[in-house]
Amino acid sequence: MKLLTIEDIRAAAERIRPHVVRTPLLAARCGDADRPLWIKPENLQPIGAFKMRGAFNALAAIVATGAKPTAVVAYSSGNHAQAVAYAAAAYGLPAHIVMPEETPSVKVLATREYGADVVLCAAGERETVAARIVSETGGVMIPPFDHRDVIAGQGTIGLEIAADLPLVRNVLIPVSGGGLASGVGVALRALCPQVKIFGVEPELAADTNDGLARGHRVDWPVRDRNRTIADGLRSQPSDLTFAHLQQVLDGVITVSEAEIRSAVKELAFHTRLVSEPSGAVAFAAYRQGKTPPGATVVILSGGNIEPQMLLEILAE
Amino acid sequence: MKLLTIEDIRAAAERIRPHVVRTPLLAARCGDADRPLWIKPENLQPIGAFKMRGAFNALAAIVATGAKPTAVVAYSSGNHAQAVAYAAAAYGLPAHIVMPEETPSVKVLATREYGADVVLCAAGERETVAARIVSETGGVMIPPFDHRDVIAGQGTIGLEIAADLPLVRNVLIPVSGGGLASGVGVALRALCPQVKIFGVEPELAADTNDGLARGHRVDWPVRDRNRTIADGLRSQPSDLTFAHLQQVLDGVITVSEAEIRSAVKELAFHTRLVSEPSGAVAFAAYRQGKTPPGATVVILSGGNIEPQMLLEILAE
Repeated sequence: MKLLTIEDIRAAAERIRPHVVRTPLLAARCGDADRPLWIKPENLQPIGAFKMRGAFNALAAIVATGAKPTAVVAYSSGNHAQAVAYAAAAYGLPAHIVMPEETPSVKVLATREYGADVVLCAAGERETVAARIVSETGGVMIPPFDHRDVIAGQGTIGLEIAADLPLVRNVLIPVSGGGLASGVGVALRALCPQVKIFGVEPELAADTNDGLARGHRVDWPVRDRNRTIADGLRSQPSDLTFAHLQQVLDGVITVSEAEIRSAVKELAFHTRLVSEPSGAVAFAAYRQGKTPPGATVVILSGGNIEPQMLLEILAE
Repeated sequence: MKLLTIEDIRAAAERIRPHVVRTPLLAARCGDADRPLWIKPENLQPIGAFKMRGAFNALAAIVATGAKPTAVVAYSSGNHAQAVAYAAAAYGLPAHIVMPEETPSVKVLATREYGADVVLCAAGERETVAARIVSETGGVMIPPFDHRDVIAGQGTIGLEIAADLPLVRNVLIPVSGGGLASGVGVALRALCPQVKIFGVEPELAADTNDGLARGHRVDWPVRDRNRTIADGLRSQPSDLTFAHLQQVLDGVITVSEAEIRSAVKELAFHTRLVSEPSGAVAFAAYRQGKTPPGATVVILSGGNIEPQMLLEILAE
C-alpha cells in the first residue's frame, strides 16, 4: 500500500491555509523538569477540533480538480460532522450529514447551526444511507479518516509542530480511526528524525494498541468501545490508516477513564483550555510520566464537551 | 507630553519575540451576523495574561543598554507580578514582587512558582514598599503600566491584530491602568485608520469613563473600585496612560458584574477558553450589542481565575 508523503501534507497545508487557525505551540507550566511540555491546542479551531483540517483539504482538493460537486455528504456523530458542515458552507455547497438516531440532540443542533441538512438513521445504517444520498444528489462523500486527503489535512499539524519546535523529542497523539496520528506521523518522520511518536487510546477502546502488538488490525466490539467517556475515540483504523500507524508510531499509551477526567480538569485550571475527554487523552498519557525525557508535544485534539459534563469533571 | 509612536511598538515586538506567544485571532461562532467576532486570546501566554509583553520589553530594554541590574522589583495585583517574575527568571535575575494582601491566592502562589520573592502589604502601600525594596537592593523597578516600555510591549498586540485582520472595524480593550489600551491604541491608530477603539471597564471601577467625559483624570476611592469581581481592573490611569487614552479611544463601554460573570461562562462553553473576570470584560461589552457593525476584535486579556470561582460561574 502506498503511504502518504511529506509532499502530500505540504500540498494540504497550502490548500487549507485560508480556512484554519495556525495554532501556536503553548508552553505548559505543569510539565516535568526533564520533559518540558508543549500543547498544540486544536480546540481553538472554529469548530473546536482538528477535523477542520482534513475536511477542508478533502473538499479543496476536489474543487481544485475543476469538479463542481452539487453537495457534500458525510456520516459522523461527532466533530467530523461539524467540520464537513463548516467546510461545505465555506464553499457555498449544501451538506448532508448522516447521524445515528441516538445522537445527542445538542450535536445535531451544532451541525445544523453550520447550515447542514442532518439525516437521522438507524444505528449501523450510516454508511448505506450516506451512499444513497451521494447517488441521489450527485454529491461527494468526505469520510472521517479513511481517505488520503483527510489524512494529509490532519498531517498539517505535524508540519506546524516541526516548524515551531524542530528538536521535539516526543509527540503524543490521540488515536481513534487513526487519521490524525497517520498524517502527523508522516510529517514528523520526514522532518524530525529524532522524534518518538506515541499514539494514545483509552484503555476501554485500545484496539490499535492491541492490533499493533499482534501485527494486524483487530476488531473490538462496538459495545466495548462505547464504554469510554472519550466519545471521539471509539472508531477503529482502516487498512489505510493502520498501515500508516504501523510505520510511524513508536508505541501506544493507554489511559484510564479517571486519568482522562483528571486531564480535562487540569487542562482547564492550569492551561486555561477547555478540552473534551477525547481531546485530553494525550495530556493524560504525558502525566503518567513514562515517556522518554526531552521536549514533548501533546495534541489537544478538541474541546466540544457538554457543559454539564465539564462542570461535573471540574468539580471532582 | 510625548506619546509613543508605532516605531516604539515595532522595536518592542523585536525584543519580545523570543519570549511571548504570537497568539492567533480566533473566529468566534457566537458573534452577531453584522459584527463578526474575533478573539485575541492572551490567556494563552505562559503566565496566562498579556502582561508578559510589557514586562519582557521593559526588562529587555534595560538589559540592552548594557546595565546589569541586581534585581527586578514590581508591585502588582496579580498578572503583572507573574509577568515580571517570569521575565526576571528568564534573565536569571532575582525578583521581588509587592502584592496587596487581598490578591487571589492563585496569583500569589503562581508568582512564587516562578521563583519570585513575594512581599504582601496593605492596599495603597504597594508603591512605597516597592520603592523601599528598590533602594535596598539596587534593583530596577518595572511598573505595571506607567512606563513607556511597558506600554510599548502591550502595544505589540495591536501590531498582531493589524497583521491578521487589517480591515478590522472595532477593537474592544479592557482598561485598568490603561497600559494595554494605550499601546494597542497607538499601534492601531497608525496601522488601521478605519478602526474604532473602545476601552471597557466594570461599572464599579469606571474611573476612566468618568475621567474621559470630564476631560481630566478622576480619582475613585479604592474601596469603590475594589467592589468589582474583575480584580485586574481596579487600577487607574497615570498621567502618561491617560494622555494616550484621550488620544486613541473612541469611547468607553462599562459592563455590569452580571455581564462579566456571564461572559466568563460563555467564553468557556462556546470558545473553549478559560478567562478571568478582568479578561472577559471586552467580550461582555461586545455582547451588549451597541458597538458599530463590522469585524470586531475583543482582547481576552487573561485567564488566571480561582478554580472555585470558575466553578461557581460555570454553574450559574
